[in-house]
Amino acid sequence: MTLHAFDEAIKLECVTDNTFVGHTSAAYANMVGPFGGITAAQAMQAVLQHPQRQGDPVSLTINFAAALAAGPFEVEARPARTNRSTQHWVIEIRQNGETVLTGTAFTALRRDTWGLDEEAMPQCPPPAQVPTGKAPIPMAWVQQYEMRPIAGAMPLVWDGSGDSSLTQLWVRDNPPRPLDFASLTALADVFFPRLFVRRATMVPVGTVTMTVYFHADQNQLAATGSGYLLAQARAQAFRNGYFDHTAQLWNAAGVLLVTTHQLVYYKS
Amino acid sequence: MTLHAFDEAIKLECVTDNTFVGHTSAAYANMVGPFGGITAAQAMQAVLQHPQRQGDPVSLTINFAAALAAGPFEVEARPARTNRSTQHWVIEIRQNGETVLTGTAFTALRRDTWGLDEEAMPQCPPPAQVPTGKAPIPMAWVQQYEMRPIAGAMPLVWDGSGDSSLTQLWVRDNPPRPLDFASLTALADVFFPRLFVRRATMVPVGTVTMTVYFHADQNQLAATGSGYLLAQARAQAFRNGYFDHTAQLWNAAGVLLVTTHQLVYYKS
Repeated sequence: MTLHAFDEAIKLECVTDNTFVGHTSAAYANMVGPFGGITAAQAMQAVLQHPQRQGDPVSLTINFAAALAAGPFEVEARPARTNRSTQHWVIEIRQNGETVLTGTAFTALRRDTWGLDEEAMPQCPPPAQVPTGKAPIPMAWVQQYEMRPIAGAMPLVWDGSGDSSLTQLWVRDNPPRPLDFASLTALADVFFPRLFVRRATMVPVGTVTMTVYFHADQNQLAATGSGYLLAQARAQAFRNGYFDHTAQLWNAAGVLLVTTHQLVYYKS
Repeated sequence: MTLHAFDEAIKLECVTDNTFVGHTSAAYANMVGPFGGITAAQAMQAVLQHPQRQGDPVSLTINFAAALAAGPFEVEARPARTNRSTQHWVIEIRQNGETVLTGTAFTALRRDTWGLDEEAMPQCPPPAQVPTGKAPIPMAWVQQYEMRPIAGAMPLVWDGSGDSSLTQLWVRDNPPRPLDFASLTALADVFFPRLFVRRATMVPVGTVTMTVYFHADQNQLAATGSGYLLAQARAQAFRNGYFDHTAQLWNAAGVLLVTTHQLVYYKS
């Protein structure tokens, strides 16, 4: 049986207590270096397969310090503080002894409590009624996702005509794969740069930092399975070389699985 | 001349290259331990006064691993990667050799580019028309801010009657103090817990992680001076012990200075 490309990509080999070795994945290559979401998933995976891990991911922040070169890398995931039911992690990815990613994560044993989703899933046509988007870009990682854009797709004409950075799409792994914390981490980075959507102008961009809040627990991942997620992102400000975005991912039943944010460098 | 309580609170003494010693501030005490915003500002301050710092803060993420005990603490701010015009920082606060906070920051030399604020300041009455809120809680830190609540103030009656977590308020340091990156960091944590507002029910809560994106540069800080900020926060999901919030701070001229997010533990 062949491994799913995603499972192949996040394979890590334990080297010492806190250190793992992984390898960049040609299937998830981006313009320069890997798709940030796969790097995020690899960082998360080091925590997930750490023998001392307690609980499930609740938050993750990673900072891209340099583009990863194709080849092996070392991930360190260190439990900086272990409380009764929570744990704080410090993460670093290195290549040739140089730091290429820094990060932190928080895991916890979750208990049933009162709850509600205040951010409701927007009204959208169901996935079957939304055609698969033609990816207007040649990057390998885009082929690993089935994307059905509803609003704010990648521009087909670069004429500076955008007037909103809002994107909404149905998305899942291609081929479908049951959702877990690693794949949800990667999916949280599935959005094309907000600047492209808002301005219909292509300039060099690169994510600097990304934070993922996992509202989903194991039960909600299992209930989602390999179903579609509704992904929505919107920028709040573009200023002097950096823009942010704030984003949400719901499953098709309307349960908010993740809220996520990032800050992206742009040149113009 | 007496130092402003905020400047007193963020005073750090350099111990070694990357390590500073600070002290918790009685003026910014919270229910248990310090106001998270002042701890965030102290973490940011270690980067700000680091002799190798390059550029200004663009993002900061901190994770509260344990409540700080009243007394001294050690902050380590380590430049993990220095690029041509950007720098990635790893931060840790320790007390008695134990990690109480982990974090990362990103600083950069910013250049003028095309830009716009997509998230517009909401229509609100000007500060002079909004009375100062009576703080319904006795914590010291609340006295260090002048707060003029417009919507979603701390409930005065805890009857489970809330129906939205949206809060809007005018806020500035009390007494007024010219805005800088450290005080803006603290102000980004000025919001009462969204759960209190949404549910009008008081339960134990504590911020786990907080991320601040600084859209403001030195010019915009200077233009803001000691003026009021419009602060807005809203939760997206409350689920199994954790809720998030997403928030914005504008200056009175309507310039978006900061977007910020946090994830908060709650018991119920």
